[in-house]
Amino acid sequence: MSAPLRVGIVGFGVVGQSTAQTLAEHAEDIHRRTGQRLAVTWVCRRTPLAPAAIPAGACATQDWRAVVAAADVDVVVETVGGVQAAAEIVRAALEAGKPVVTANKNLLAARGDELFALAQARHIPLGFEAAVAGGVPVVRAIAEGAAGDRLIALRGILNGTANYILTRMEEDGLEFETALGEAQRAGYAEADPTLDVEGIDARDKLAILARLAFGARVEPERIARQGIRGVTAVDAHYARALGGSIRLIAAAERGPGGVDLSVRPWLLARNSMLARVTGVNNAVLLTGARTGTQLFSGPGAGGPATSIAVVSDLIEIAAARAAGRLAAKAPPGFGTVPEMALCTQPPEAPWYMRLTVADRPGIVARVAAALAEQDINIDAVAQEPGMEKSRLSWVVTTEPAAAASVRAAQEEIEKCDFMRAPILLLRSALKE
Amino acid sequence: MSAPLRVGIVGFGVVGQSTAQTLAEHAEDIHRRTGQRLAVTWVCRRTPLAPAAIPAGACATQDWRAVVAAADVDVVVETVGGVQAAAEIVRAALEAGKPVVTANKNLLAARGDELFALAQARHIPLGFEAAVAGGVPVVRAIAEGAAGDRLIALRGILNGTANYILTRMEEDGLEFETALGEAQRAGYAEADPTLDVEGIDARDKLAILARLAFGARVEPERIARQGIRGVTAVDAHYARALGGSIRLIAAAERGPGGVDLSVRPWLLARNSMLARVTGVNNAVLLTGARTGTQLFSGPGAGGPATSIAVVSDLIEIAAARAAGRLAAKAPPGFGTVPEMALCTQPPEAPWYMRLTVADRPGIVARVAAALAEQDINIDAVAQEPGMEKSRLSWVVTTEPAAAASVRAAQEEIEKCDFMRAPILLLRSALKE
Repeated sequence: MSAPLRVGIVGFGVVGQSTAQTLAEHAEDIHRRTGQRLAVTWVCRRTPLAPAAIPAGACATQDWRAVVAAADVDVVVETVGGVQAAAEIVRAALEAGKPVVTANKNLLAARGDELFALAQARHIPLGFEAAVAGGVPVVRAIAEGAAGDRLIALRGILNGTANYILTRMEEDGLEFETALGEAQRAGYAEADPTLDVEGIDARDKLAILARLAFGARVEPERIARQGIRGVTAVDAHYARALGGSIRLIAAAERGPGGVDLSVRPWLLARNSMLARVTGVNNAVLLTGARTGTQLFSGPGAGGPATSIAVVSDLIEIAAARAAGRLAAKAPPGFGTVPEMALCTQPPEAPWYMRLTVADRPGIVARVAAALAEQDINIDAVAQEPGMEKSRLSWVVTTEPAAAASVRAAQEEIEKCDFMRAPILLLRSALKE
Repeated sequence: MSAPLRVGIVGFGVVGQSTAQTLAEHAEDIHRRTGQRLAVTWVCRRTPLAPAAIPAGACATQDWRAVVAAADVDVVVETVGGVQAAAEIVRAALEAGKPVVTANKNLLAARGDELFALAQARHIPLGFEAAVAGGVPVVRAIAEGAAGDRLIALRGILNGTANYILTRMEEDGLEFETALGEAQRAGYAEADPTLDVEGIDARDKLAILARLAFGARVEPERIARQGIRGVTAVDAHYARALGGSIRLIAAAERGPGGVDLSVRPWLLARNSMLARVTGVNNAVLLTGARTGTQLFSGPGAGGPATSIAVVSDLIEIAAARAAGRLAAKAPPGFGTVPEMALCTQPPEAPWYMRLTVADRPGIVARVAAALAEQDINIDAVAQEPGMEKSRLSWVVTTEPAAAASVRAAQEEIEKCDFMRAPILLLRSALKE
């Protein structure tokens, strides 16, 4: 039997502690199934740990350099989060010849190229299954499972907080602010929910998945983005009436000249697989030229689920090390790869447009004219009965149209003095 | 740049030819995303190939030994199917020091222990992602992604033919024989559909997944099995009325004393993720102690989708070889592992029981008495109006009860002279 893999955990918060717990509680299962033994020998946190919080048999320190340098640490788990300090820790570990496992999407989005290049140059693995959709092994699925396919499209629910809020609005008729408050009380949303509800977190994750899927580099800032703050209880109501559900979708799709990347709320058919993904779950729908469509779904975050992703990387490193065959597999799309060409003319799609107006004659004609000016065909107009006349919400759905045309029409309409609130635009996949 | 991995394909049918096509058509994509180049140098089929069917630049032969021995073959793809010849081919390749990729579940179910032990002894990879649920990378998901979790349950739709038939019965009200005929005409079912509709194919795949999930050996013959021949249009109708869908489910679940393994038709809630898996798709729902529930779904079979699974294994081998680090990762549950302990008392579950009777007084009382004798509580009795009095189908759903008790009651009831057809028993997950 080979010696156990000795694990040093830097950043002993929720994920770090869950990782230590998983390694302790599942030690026998892991050994039986994989033949590997892993033991936590060091943990590091900036603030001192109570003795009871330190894993049995492990040393605790407040100085990460002690963990990286420790003779009894074979692999470093980075769960501090953030970019600057995390990058320093990962660099130091790789330079010390120690494999690293990270759960840090921000780090990879900002410094992934540099870190994977270093890992590859040193032939040292850098695992990151936990960085996207913690409880869904989607990094493996795209980088390895689909490695032979030509990927055409990817649609993901990558932010559990936004999905929880949209699900609560749909199921319980809540307004956005109420659902957000409940998410905060349940511990699913931060006090400042900007990263989640504005789609920034989903965008950063999409950048990583798009790199893996298309083998080229893309900065998150280049991805079109619309959050869910503009979605109201009225929209959830109209969505239901139309047979749909609203979800925040991170999408990548091949089009003319390159890949179209966006994060925005979509109106999905209520029976579609992605609409069935509720609460804090994550999911990725992957379409390949030869495989067709695959769905992967599961819990998006949380300590226990994320720790399983960390441990899966650790077990892979343990097995390679036991065989004397450590190697760095640079993931597709990271390192010295070309920049991703983005689509110049994104594929046309149908849209849902909700307008809130002061009721008076001529409004529909004015809106229809603005759409016609952009060559956009109206599919349907819906107005639920019983609404306040001074603040009337109604909906236009369109035939497939370019995002740019729809936005131009939106701007035109929003200049009109009958408008009482910003237009909400949803990409529609109702008829798919 | 390292030399391309030279691939010899033995068994040049649907999957073999699709693999050659994928490697040719996706060569540039694969190289860009993974840095690997792969080329088919030999193909073998028992019957001669037309020149047009031979991949460009490859040699063709009718003798598999020529492929295994060829100096310009680095890895052997086994897509002949069956057990005896396939085992000989895989053994010979491993003994010649050549990695093997197989899509052959029958081979692994029958000879997996021996072949993986050989691969491990020689430190040579034996890939088999394609052997279960071709278009879903579920082998990776269970063996690697979930390697750190303690798995509690697995439910899979592992046979696309059976799922196609059940979906057609549900959507179009077809009888079993009609739906089977359509599956045969569409090329989804064999002339002799026994392996698919009796659950034998699903059982063999479940044996492989259960090994991976629980790390122990199990012979397919030890798995309880009920096919879908007994499901009728009346059952599809009752299922719909109850808010459910019928699916053939391969299930593994930890219980007292071991794992409960079965393949049988289930009544699922129509909104559940597995019920949303329609047509020839496959899916696996995996529940881990820490991850919670994950779903993986996609096309179950077909040349193109299966070829992507074969190619994913080939790319992994190419990368390991390029790094000079070929190694055999023995999958969990294969090789010299203990026999799986099976559950002595399977978990209780609710059931759906459809009876076809000659209408006369006292039948419900007799059936209720037989159930009461086994301590089974009735949940509901349903009878749709407008049925023939001489052949009346009605349904009893039960509270959770042991499979053995339900079967005992079934035997008792089937002895009654008012019975006009065998009882259909479905495990019910309507209320989950």
